[in-house]
Amino acid sequence: MTPDLPRTLQEPTTQVGKADYLRIATEEAWCPPEMFDIYKRILDEGSIDDPGFMTMFGFYLNSGSTRARQIRDYITDLGAQRIAHMDERGIDKQVLFLTSPGVQVMPTAEAVAFAADANDQLAAGCARYPNRLAGLIAVAPQDPAAAAKEIDRGINKLGLHGVVINSHTFGEYLDDQKFWPILEAAEACDTPIYLHPQVPHKAMIEPFLDRGLDGAIYGFGVETGLHMLRIMVSGALDRFPRLQFVVGHLGEALPFWMYRLDYMHRAGVVSKRYAGMPPTERKLSDYLRQNIYVTTSGMAWGPAIKFCQEVLGEDRVMYAMDYPYQHGAEEVVATDNLDISQAAKKKLFQTNAERVFKLT
Amino acid sequence: MTPDLPRTLQEPTTQVGKADYLRIATEEAWCPPEMFDIYKRILDEGSIDDPGFMTMFGFYLNSGSTRARQIRDYITDLGAQRIAHMDERGIDKQVLFLTSPGVQVMPTAEAVAFAADANDQLAAGCARYPNRLAGLIAVAPQDPAAAAKEIDRGINKLGLHGVVINSHTFGEYLDDQKFWPILEAAEACDTPIYLHPQVPHKAMIEPFLDRGLDGAIYGFGVETGLHMLRIMVSGALDRFPRLQFVVGHLGEALPFWMYRLDYMHRAGVVSKRYAGMPPTERKLSDYLRQNIYVTTSGMAWGPAIKFCQEVLGEDRVMYAMDYPYQHGAEEVVATDNLDISQAAKKKLFQTNAERVFKLT
Repeated sequence: MTPDLPRTLQEPTTQVGKADYLRIATEEAWCPPEMFDIYKRILDEGSIDDPGFMTMFGFYLNSGSTRARQIRDYITDLGAQRIAHMDERGIDKQVLFLTSPGVQVMPTAEAVAFAADANDQLAAGCARYPNRLAGLIAVAPQDPAAAAKEIDRGINKLGLHGVVINSHTFGEYLDDQKFWPILEAAEACDTPIYLHPQVPHKAMIEPFLDRGLDGAIYGFGVETGLHMLRIMVSGALDRFPRLQFVVGHLGEALPFWMYRLDYMHRAGVVSKRYAGMPPTERKLSDYLRQNIYVTTSGMAWGPAIKFCQEVLGEDRVMYAMDYPYQHGAEEVVATDNLDISQAAKKKLFQTNAERVFKLT
Repeated sequence: MTPDLPRTLQEPTTQVGKADYLRIATEEAWCPPEMFDIYKRILDEGSIDDPGFMTMFGFYLNSGSTRARQIRDYITDLGAQRIAHMDERGIDKQVLFLTSPGVQVMPTAEAVAFAADANDQLAAGCARYPNRLAGLIAVAPQDPAAAAKEIDRGINKLGLHGVVINSHTFGEYLDDQKFWPILEAAEACDTPIYLHPQVPHKAMIEPFLDRGLDGAIYGFGVETGLHMLRIMVSGALDRFPRLQFVVGHLGEALPFWMYRLDYMHRAGVVSKRYAGMPPTERKLSDYLRQNIYVTTSGMAWGPAIKFCQEVLGEDRVMYAMDYPYQHGAEEVVATDNLDISQAAKKKLFQTNAERVFKLT
């Protein structure tokens, strides 16, 4: 018992029982130690103008708090310790990827090279535990053509299972058509893009920062929800109608907003007020229900999980833990104990993830 | 039938039936024509650096679109036309207030004077229809002492029923202790503060703006949710524990985030990462359940309304229409037809509002 830890950051005291489904956790994080070295260099140089990155990694790389030390330890392991933690928490398989913001804060050439190297490492790590680990592909949106090639290599050469993009790249979003080769490659490879949070860009972070609201408590959700909305509103999903996104934290609250999104999108399009809000082929709720999967990362809470199952459909909601940022065994038990049908539970924990990430 | 209107902006074609409860709509808007004149002057002068205000009122004041013309017409009426629209839509009573951003974009002296004048006008308008209209008090946070006095005058002299504040005032939020005389006055008068949206401040609006996401579709919710969170995290509700806020649009999605808010707030406080995130006496979910009421404005959608009733309690959710920004009769019918108990429906439409705003 470490007294300065919230209950859910402690080691498991709760016993996770057997289940008649596999527990596949779909938003799990990994970081090679050398990426922390690069982040340290970026912090020391002050070479990027990104107050969110500065405060977050200023904290995680340097803090002596139990939370920061534990995350630094757990996240860099791709072997026995990770598997032991999975065993203790009843997790059969992790879908894992390079932690946020990944290479998206690096200079372009370094980002492209580091993504490829990280993907090689991750594929090798997964090959050591083929039944326990499945990786997603890190890419450098800074070079869209290289990113598209890396997606193809990751799927067809490395045997990885999807793409991860950590929201904005130096304040730019995927609705910008210069990034569409990335969307095109993912659609062509029939593989999903996990749109993972990162800290809000400097153009919006200021009112979050002094009250500590820039990170996982709120800013991550706003940044990522805004990014997904920008993509939907832009018409990108009309151009790439088969493309699937995965959005954590139960869709960053977009399912809750679904009715108002449709209403105000329609009003905005009709009014012709914004050049950047053209008519789209489908309603925003259609994109949410047809092009987006959500995961339960950080949201091990029955009412919100069941709400998403109700409004998106049981096939669109997948379990995630958010290891090692959040890894309480009692959250696994709470999800096990949801008052939903066994069939719905198996979809939530196992079969949706198997289908979306082609795990079997 | 005007072809360029979304269905829900048309005149009622749906028949709203009788109900065995009063329908009280609690987030309804009004604007004296002379406030539009002041906004025109501010736009013409370019005297404030507020891109959100510029785009929004650049549109609403000048657009020839049916939506803009209709809103300009409906919102300025405080008499027979408003009552006729209420009758057509089955609304028994409006709780209404000066539309956003109210006086919060005016120079201080003008803001203080205009708020008082608007409150006089609104009180007189309500006196003409005592069973149909109940007003809230506009204040100028620019002068907190004057705002506190106006709250006292509004409650004790004018017979108004609460206070409205339209989120930020020139980028400043109510968690700043210089504004706490306003919170103190509201608590002392035992009257709620409606924390109403306005356009995000320039320090965060940029990534919303070019895709038309700055307004009611998303930016309003983020701005106002962030503001309410800042107040909760600051400890203001420990200093003013009896103070009640009302937050529209089903709490700007904060109820959906409740689990994650608690988890990450605890982690943030324990880590001591932010000077602006001190320990608080209660969990964020406690503030949500004990100091905040939510209304259904713009969210006439069963799944989200029932979710909020489930996680906040039936006593914490109130009906609102958002007239004239949203005024579809079919939304009233949809709310009438919610599959909840008659007792819960009466709380939603009538008795919660009567209690919170002291309407009887």
